[in-house]
Amino acid sequence: MKRTILYFSYLITFLIAISGTSFTMKQMNTLNSPVSSETEACLDCHSVVTPGIVEDWSSGIHARITPAESLAKSDLEKKVSSPKVPEELKNKIVGCYECHSLNTAKHADSFDHFDYKINVIVSPSDCAVCHSDEMEQFSVSKKAHALDNLRKNPIYSTLVATITGLKTMDKGKIRESEGSENAKNESCYACHGTEVKVTGTMTLETDMADLELPVLSNWPNQGVGRINPDGSRGACSACHPRHSFSIEIARKPDTCSQCHLEPDVPAWNVFRESKHGNIFHSKQTQWNWSRVPWTVGKDFKSPTCAACHNSLLIDQEGTVIAERSHDFGARLWIRIFGLIFSHPQPKDGRTYLIKNQDGLPLPTTFSGKRADGYLIEKNEQDLRRTQMEQICTSCHSTLWTRGFFRKFDATTAEADKMVLAATSLLQEAWEKGMIDNKNPFDEHLEHIWIEQWLFSANCLRYASAMSGPDFAGFKYGWWKLNKTLQELRFYMNQNH
Amino acid sequence: MKRTILYFSYLITFLIAISGTSFTMKQMNTLNSPVSSETEACLDCHSVVTPGIVEDWSSGIHARITPAESLAKSDLEKKVSSPKVPEELKNKIVGCYECHSLNTAKHADSFDHFDYKINVIVSPSDCAVCHSDEMEQFSVSKKAHALDNLRKNPIYSTLVATITGLKTMDKGKIRESEGSENAKNESCYACHGTEVKVTGTMTLETDMADLELPVLSNWPNQGVGRINPDGSRGACSACHPRHSFSIEIARKPDTCSQCHLEPDVPAWNVFRESKHGNIFHSKQTQWNWSRVPWTVGKDFKSPTCAACHNSLLIDQEGTVIAERSHDFGARLWIRIFGLIFSHPQPKDGRTYLIKNQDGLPLPTTFSGKRADGYLIEKNEQDLRRTQMEQICTSCHSTLWTRGFFRKFDATTAEADKMVLAATSLLQEAWEKGMIDNKNPFDEHLEHIWIEQWLFSANCLRYASAMSGPDFAGFKYGWWKLNKTLQELRFYMNQNH
Amino acid sequence: MKRTILYFSYLITFLIAISGTSFTMKQMNTLNSPVSSETEACLDCHSVVTPGIVEDWSSGIHARITPAESLAKSDLEKKVSSPKVPEELKNKIVGCYECHSLNTAKHADSFDHFDYKINVIVSPSDCAVCHSDEMEQFSVSKKAHALDNLRKNPIYSTLVATITGLKTMDKGKIRESEGSENAKNESCYACHGTEVKVTGTMTLETDMADLELPVLSNWPNQGVGRINPDGSRGACSACHPRHSFSIEIARKPDTCSQCHLEPDVPAWNVFRESKHGNIFHSKQTQWNWSRVPWTVGKDFKSPTCAACHNSLLIDQEGTVIAERSHDFGARLWIRIFGLIFSHPQPKDGRTYLIKNQDGLPLPTTFSGKRADGYLIEKNEQDLRRTQMEQICTSCHSTLWTRGFFRKFDATTAEADKMVLAATSLLQEAWEKGMIDNKNPFDEHLEHIWIEQWLFSANCLRYASAMSGPDFAGFKYGWWKLNKTLQELRFYMNQNH
Repeated sequence: MKRTILYFSYLITFLIAISGTSFTMKQMNTLNSPVSSETEACLDCHSVVTPGIVEDWSSGIHARITPAESLAKSDLEKKVSSPKVPEELKNKIVGCYECHSLNTAKHADSFDHFDYKINVIVSPSDCAVCHSDEMEQFSVSKKAHALDNLRKNPIYSTLVATITGLKTMDKGKIRESEGSENAKNESCYACHGTEVKVTGTMTLETDMADLELPVLSNWPNQGVGRINPDGSRGACSACHPRHSFSIEIARKPDTCSQCHLEPDVPAWNVFRESKHGNIFHSKQTQWNWSRVPWTVGKDFKSPTCAACHNSLLIDQEGTVIAERSHDFGARLWIRIFGLIFSHPQPKDGRTYLIKNQDGLPLPTTFSGKRADGYLIEKNEQDLRRTQMEQICTSCHSTLWTRGFFRKFDATTAEADKMVLAATSLLQEAWEKGMIDNKNPFDEHLEHIWIEQWLFSANCLRYASAMSGPDFAGFKYGWWKLNKTLQELRFYMNQNH
Repeated sequence: MKRTILYFSYLITFLIAISGTSFTMKQMNTLNSPVSSETEACLDCHSVVTPGIVEDWSSGIHARITPAESLAKSDLEKKVSSPKVPEELKNKIVGCYECHSLNTAKHADSFDHFDYKINVIVSPSDCAVCHSDEMEQFSVSKKAHALDNLRKNPIYSTLVATITGLKTMDKGKIRESEGSENAKNESCYACHGTEVKVTGTMTLETDMADLELPVLSNWPNQGVGRINPDGSRGACSACHPRHSFSIEIARKPDTCSQCHLEPDVPAWNVFRESKHGNIFHSKQTQWNWSRVPWTVGKDFKSPTCAACHNSLLIDQEGTVIAERSHDFGARLWIRIFGLIFSHPQPKDGRTYLIKNQDGLPLPTTFSGKRADGYLIEKNEQDLRRTQMEQICTSCHSTLWTRGFFRKFDATTAEADKMVLAATSLLQEAWEKGMIDNKNPFDEHLEHIWIEQWLFSANCLRYASAMSGPDFAGFKYGWWKLNKTLQELRFYMNQNH
Repeated sequence: MKRTILYFSYLITFLIAISGTSFTMKQMNTLNSPVSSETEACLDCHSVVTPGIVEDWSSGIHARITPAESLAKSDLEKKVSSPKVPEELKNKIVGCYECHSLNTAKHADSFDHFDYKINVIVSPSDCAVCHSDEMEQFSVSKKAHALDNLRKNPIYSTLVATITGLKTMDKGKIRESEGSENAKNESCYACHGTEVKVTGTMTLETDMADLELPVLSNWPNQGVGRINPDGSRGACSACHPRHSFSIEIARKPDTCSQCHLEPDVPAWNVFRESKHGNIFHSKQTQWNWSRVPWTVGKDFKSPTCAACHNSLLIDQEGTVIAERSHDFGARLWIRIFGLIFSHPQPKDGRTYLIKNQDGLPLPTTFSGKRADGYLIEKNEQDLRRTQMEQICTSCHSTLWTRGFFRKFDATTAEADKMVLAATSLLQEAWEKGMIDNKNPFDEHLEHIWIEQWLFSANCLRYASAMSGPDFAGFKYGWWKLNKTLQELRFYMNQNH
């Protein structure tokens, strides 16, 4: 009889566990989790001062596993990629102190917090203590250089400055000024990342004692290309939200949708209306979002952003279909947004280094010629394309997959031609002096042209890449590409 | 052995209970729920005539608890806020008759329903029999006066009439007419509420007997500022859908999204693309949406509309972080939509009473001067702002929170300046007679200007308030603020 | 004690079953599922070659039930509608071979696949072997003829060709060309369906042997009006995604949203912001999406697209509220999109057969006169409307329902008038020679006019039909109807 009761109590524990209820500190102590004494000190205050963070952390895997336990897993299952984790970290769960106390010497944002040296920002370099592969992959990606790819590229930085520039009226004339740091931080840099620097210190009164805190510029920010006070690039929290650092959340398209949205980068919106997105929305609560590696068909039944672009995928036999990569362009051969025309992926994540045949830091000229030396070659394109096809053929026949890619090739080419037509019209307007090409982004006709490539052509290309027919038709796409062209011609005829 | 089987049957019951299956009437009778005989009579027919309503109600808390049981709960847990509930209601569950038979004398919509006096509409005054605090808080809010805030304000009523006005062509000229009641009810008043009056009676044949029913004007409607046949204001069902009156549904952003949507009030859309929204979409099925009070980090891990704007929040120790309020502006110091420029919240929910320095019923003049006497003072602003900061600091550091609010201050100021520039341009057009300012809402250039403040500036302000970078950038926001200004200038130059 | 353990193991099995884990092949064999030897051969390879498909199929009902078992169910529960299923199919679960080997003689896409004759495409005619009623209902619907309704209608085909037509610049002039097959397939035909033909064969090398495969034109495609290589019309997979063929997915609005989206057919978007949509988004994970028949209030608490438009609905007593139909217009009396003005539903699914009083294949003239002989009569309209009202009154009172329909009638009439005004303006522009009416879809003023009926009026009508106030107000709807009219007048005055 006793054993029956025992079974029953196991069961209840199991049910509580699967019901999503988080561990509480009390439970953790009962289970004798190996929490460091420093983290215990953090938790003592912060479970009162910032209870939300503590609860969130305690629901995550960092609160349940030690690096040593993770290192003992098989290669495919292991999430700690660093071959060696410092001894002092190995046998404690990953708590507040374990992360916020790393590489203090490099952290300009380090401060004295009741006798502990604490860094405000946990940077990719800190995460790399355990997750070195991810850091390494990420650091060569376009994402890692997302801020400089705007700032250090004179064309893009003009675009940013013009769009976010405050305008005032001066005797009937629009007086332009460059966008404020604030305006950039709230819009472009919110995703691309800001450069966070320590600009001074401030005193904060607390119930316990006064704290001398570093003052950070361009903060808060969680942009993917953030430059941190320790000099590192990136914000892992852009996709793995603090403090659960959930792989579940990172794997869901909602994460990508924080930045990849219509009208300029309609990845999420196109996915949403695709059959893949339909199945995801219908069935997602029944999938296993946390298992590593991720088994096609078993853990998830329809691809998400992560499945195609970065997760480690296997089939039921354990054969690897795709390797994990935190360089999110690693499986891509073509780049379908971010510039006027589609083009092969750049070789270097630092796109501001590109120089095209007109001497501009752009992957194509305004007439579409590609800056070939800077872009990946045919054989690398084919390699990546084959890799992606392999993911498709986990569920689709070869016939289907080839047909799909054939359509994509044709559509990106057609989208480029529709942009070319609009660009020709604009060049006519520049040549005839209807508008001034000193700044190609500040006049009404130029705005219409920008929408042609940045909104409508991007939407059409994405619609093809991910099968969202509405975005190919009336939601931007062909409708708008066509309408915009006639609209440009209409205005230019009027002004002639 | 028998006990084993017993445990197993408990388990099955438990599994069924958590699987979301609702109580059926049969089960209810088995459990001897204290249903009033009147409600039993309602259920007898209505489980056949309108089975959906009955099932929905039976899945809600009203079908499972008596007011007496609720009153016995602790102050924080209690949802019945009225100090005294009438004796005859106390010990029965809250069924059809308990709600539809209240305050009959005041209800012009009361009718004889097979010998019971039944009100068609259950109004906030009826709900207040048990939930008096909520009614009291709500009744002073802008929401309670949402209809009159449009109707009794000559500026807004002109806007409504112009937008919803049917146009016909008369010899090449657009002939305008004021919007029909129907057009207003379907658009603006669908959210703001209609005035529901009894205009007569009608006979309805039923299987049992003929019914003499009241005929209601402007019905159906569930707008938040509805004026009911008993003279009360509001519709609790706007957020707590009939007949489960679920706190779960009301607490989710989907409820707010019925009205607070882009392009004019993009609250839901910005939340959707924010990190908070991302976490909500990913994890919501694992949260406890019904617990009262609501524990930060434990019951929910990312704020929703309700968490920041009206729910009773506590930490794990039971300390209150924020008091419940059904005046949804109670925690707000600034108003970022609804008028040309941002401004401090009005003191009175009846915004039509405001008079600015130009004598207009608007919280600012067209050049941005604030109608100070009508708006909350600095100390009240600070009080509310501190209250909101306290919610943020449940999960964020003081540094983070202050930085966040600093950005918000700067961005609302910048948005206002972009609106000011467009307004100056429009004033030039009015002064030069390009357009006619008799009705500032009916000409093409005026429409462009309206979109500047009502769409683009609102979007930018919301994007800052809730961290949705796309709405600050290319989705309305800075992109459109800038484009619209150049577009206005472009047209005005052409017509010069 | 042993029995206790047994119970516990049952329990674990049960928990695994409800946790969404799919059957694996191994489990299937253990359970002695009646899999055909042919399907076993398919599974042997394809669980390695296309593991995603196999897993998806094994999670669906086809992998768990034989036609004979389905036929034994009660009339209301039965999903196999064919009175007779071929003997050889009856007692095996519905596996790969059972579907891909049907009617081979008719299938131009049939090929020799390691000694089995396999059809690439499983067509509606194949599904009809078991589901004949669904095929029959579908085959007379507008959906079944969705491709020809574009292609064979000269007006619509001009619209399609113009929108998707590639434009190039030729000495400052926009040179138009008709849309490529690819452009049409990616946009309009992605939903309407393509005509899939076998154009040749190709050799595919595989690990086992070379395969001689049919080459298909206009493939892949899952449009609802696809014309298949066996001559049949439709793609069941448009709504029942392969290879689980889940009724759950088909019943959820996400499925319909693949095609029915703003700006032209904003069904999903309006639902999303309606109270019905709010409740759906909040509670959907707690509903029973697979039960047949579908019980109002019990299995679902708020209607979805399927509930109102095609599912078999009953009340708790088992009384039928609405019969199942796979003619998705069968419950509709009015058509609110797809043409300039609203009009009664066409009698025939082949809308290209209509001829209006101007001799055009449109259900109304440009001034709104209806092509009466081709549209359903008053009595049929009333019949369908009553049917729909019956669904509403499962949850709403008669008063409410009538009021709702009264608003809908008024709003569709008002939307039509706003379109009429814009059409009059356009006719003026045509008559005065400002623009050329040879192709009514290719000039800027015409594009503005198209948006009036195809975007704004559709949005207003849908907003009324499904109670989405924002789409009636500022999101398209009245705001845009009004703005567009003034915009047209503004341009025409400039060009005068």
